Amino acid sequence: MNFGGAFERLTQQLVKLPGVGKKTAERLAFHILSIKESEARNLAQAILAVKEKLRLCSRCFNFSEQDPCPYCSDIRRDRLVICVVEEPRDLAAIERTGAHKGTYHVLHGLISPLEGVAPEDIKIKELIERIKREGVEEVIMATNPTVEGDATALYLAKLITPLKVKVTRIAQGMPMGGDLEYTDEVTVRMALEGRRVL
Amino acid sequence: MNFGGAFERLTQQLVKLPGVGKKTAERLAFHILSIKESEARNLAQAILAVKEKLRLCSRCFNFSEQDPCPYCSDIRRDRLVICVVEEPRDLAAIERTGAHKGTYHVLHGLISPLEGVAPEDIKIKELIERIKREGVEEVIMATNPTVEGDATALYLAKLITPLKVKVTRIAQGMPMGGDLEYTDEVTVRMALEGRRVL
Repeated sequence: MNFGGAFERLTQQLVKLPGVGKKTAERLAFHILSIKESEARNLAQAILAVKEKLRLCSRCFNFSEQDPCPYCSDIRRDRLVICVVEEPRDLAAIERTGAHKGTYHVLHGLISPLEGVAPEDIKIKELIERIKREGVEEVIMATNPTVEGDATALYLAKLITPLKVKVTRIAQGMPMGGDLEYTDEVTVRMALEGRRVL
Repeated sequence: MNFGGAFERLTQQLVKLPGVGKKTAERLAFHILSIKESEARNLAQAILAVKEKLRLCSRCFNFSEQDPCPYCSDIRRDRLVICVVEEPRDLAAIERTGAHKGTYHVLHGLISPLEGVAPEDIKIKELIERIKREGVEEVIMATNPTVEGDATALYLAKLITPLKVKVTRIAQGMPMGGDLEYTDEVTVRMALEGRRVL
């Protein structure tokens, strides 16, 4: 292709976005070329504004324009129950359910020896200090049910249980609408092991 | 979700991109939040630069930083053979094959009464003037094989043939690696009708 350096540079930037390959980057760049200049400026400004305005909450490390964040400053939320998640997007997923009335703690990663992420690289120290400081009653481990998510939950449970704090883990089992025939064995086994009285 | 107005505004901008739904927009916004500020600035600047630097070539209406564009100013290209495409991205697709040694003409749309696009809304007048001015020998209709693409090609053929210029249409048939069993009937019929002696 030969649309010039500016086009090349834009596709190079777009291809860094998650889920965007070379073809999608070109499609997006063509789209940006086709929209009004004011529209493109809105997009560019929104990108800059989000970096400028959003900071990490100093208490739960969620992204927020205020500090503490709206969840931490909401007096109707139970501050003695903390839901621990890997990333802000996981917090958003839990918020969509409306099932959690407590506060959060965002780790910003999971322990992963293979990828060189040690416990001190994520917000674990801050969580432990917060638990000690605030007299927390329950810590819900809501990391994803993956090898790293399980390992991080286990690691944290070993650190937190001695502090006389209840540590729980989100349930693993069949997803709603799932089909036993097409579900992997680990999930089916988890569903069996986690069965509850009806 | 409650990450604040800047986050909301960014996802609202991202959701306007083609193929980006609400979920993808949020994923992209979270990604932009997680990258370095300098990276985000590079992305925003690349968006603005592409709008600022790229113009339409005054001869073929391709996007280009120069006028005339590199294709129109390439003296090794046959200026008497024009390949007509709907959008610059189609030009890019044809360039990738290396099979076209002539120049291009980008219509920037297709005639579509349903969507209110009339012949005067796309670069048809400019094509006809160019054909008359430059003594063109062949015009290859490389619009997509859709209802609008076919109709636009036919419309142009009726305008151009009286000028004693050869008008051709790209072949329609089975795609490479295609399977007759799973190919739609129209394509199979086109493949049969367009059969060639081996």
